[in-house]
Amino acid sequence: MTYCVAMNLAGGLVFVSDSRTNAGVDHIATFRKLHVFGVPGERLIVLQSAGNLATSQSVISLLRHRLNGEGEHLHTVSSLFAAATLVGDTVREVLSRTGGATLTQGVDLGCSFLLGGQIRGEAPALYNLYPQGNFIASTEDTPYFQIGESKYGKPILDRALSHQTSLQQALRCALISFDSTIRSNLSVGMPLDLLVYRANSLELPTGFRVHEGDAYFEEIRQQWCSGLRQLLGQLPPPPGDYWG
Amino acid sequence: MTYCVAMNLAGGLVFVSDSRTNAGVDHIATFRKLHVFGVPGERLIVLQSAGNLATSQSVISLLRHRLNGEGEHLHTVSSLFAAATLVGDTVREVLSRTGGATLTQGVDLGCSFLLGGQIRGEAPALYNLYPQGNFIASTEDTPYFQIGESKYGKPILDRALSHQTSLQQALRCALISFDSTIRSNLSVGMPLDLLVYRANSLELPTGFRVHEGDAYFEEIRQQWCSGLRQLLGQLPPPPGDYWG
Repeated sequence: MTYCVAMNLAGGLVFVSDSRTNAGVDHIATFRKLHVFGVPGERLIVLQSAGNLATSQSVISLLRHRLNGEGEHLHTVSSLFAAATLVGDTVREVLSRTGGATLTQGVDLGCSFLLGGQIRGEAPALYNLYPQGNFIASTEDTPYFQIGESKYGKPILDRALSHQTSLQQALRCALISFDSTIRSNLSVGMPLDLLVYRANSLELPTGFRVHEGDAYFEEIRQQWCSGLRQLLGQLPPPPGDYWG
Repeated sequence: MTYCVAMNLAGGLVFVSDSRTNAGVDHIATFRKLHVFGVPGERLIVLQSAGNLATSQSVISLLRHRLNGEGEHLHTVSSLFAAATLVGDTVREVLSRTGGATLTQGVDLGCSFLLGGQIRGEAPALYNLYPQGNFIASTEDTPYFQIGESKYGKPILDRALSHQTSLQQALRCALISFDSTIRSNLSVGMPLDLLVYRANSLELPTGFRVHEGDAYFEEIRQQWCSGLRQLLGQLPPPPGDYWG
């Protein structure tokens, strides 16, 4: 499985992905799921992938290969909407090669993408691309998207995240969301790839890889865990009728 | 969907169930999923159900009907293990009536149960019954079980619950686990049915129904939400290399 989250906030964009892929519990590997495209001072396009790795890798490979070609590509598209359309088309192109049900033998070859970034002249934007290649954009009401194993890490996002949340708080929130997921589900695992983009900077951040045992991540995991237990203990005691 | 959690702790047992059933978003209803059997001073057996409602209702109806019959039933079985076996047999009995694939038309008729309680002379116990009618027992290492929509509410249980957790803290933990689930998933809904059993009391608690707007539940939901945001804000700021 996989877990990726991306946020489109007033201050910029936050992306965090895990790196575990698995086909059954005895076939686990580490693959990067966060991919950066762009031209400094002009555009940043970040892609995160979940789902069938053969499909998502092919899509990323084609997108990257075509940066040097003649046709329209991620470094020439005029808007982030056009970038999402191009990625969606590439997903359909890869899937159309896989043939019908006889060839896929019941295996789900679909994959999902989150696409976020900024192109000069536009505001930052974030899209959630479905396996069919169509997509939706984030809004101030719904400033984040998740793909993959999203349920364990959703409650903290629903409680603590809004469009006005600072990048710092949002990054902590994303990391806690990953901690919740990793603790409860074996198919999501370290290292994490993260990238923070400050709105209108048009910089290409290199991002950061959080490895197992990373001092900061361990510190906030522990603080969060002990803080939660303390918080639970400080809630008022259940009233008498709760005890039946 | 459904969400039920049950805990087998040093101090006793805690059960909480939601009451929403749905077949699509336009067919939502309220059904009790927490069922109490027992004889005061002698035995308490609590059943919680998830999955196909027609199947689980039939199982509960048969178990209740047979309390007045000649054969072995939940008020005569000699152990909680025998109670779990009897419920598993009843699940198989109901499912065996449904016929083959032609009749079920692809609908999943399976259901899961949590069964917990105490019979005089034994320690309290808790079982997780699978749709096949087989089951596992909780242990000190794994003191809780969930059935239904379990992912959203699992992280807080994994972080805050152990066999030594007090009943009061465990009840709060279960309620927060439900709050997390209800906020993030429409298919789990109020009211909640809860029951707390103190180990070796051999009482039959009536349990309590937490309705929408319940003063205590609202209070802890709000305290938890604001406490979480505060806790997140108190975590140390991400170091410079996290910003790429």
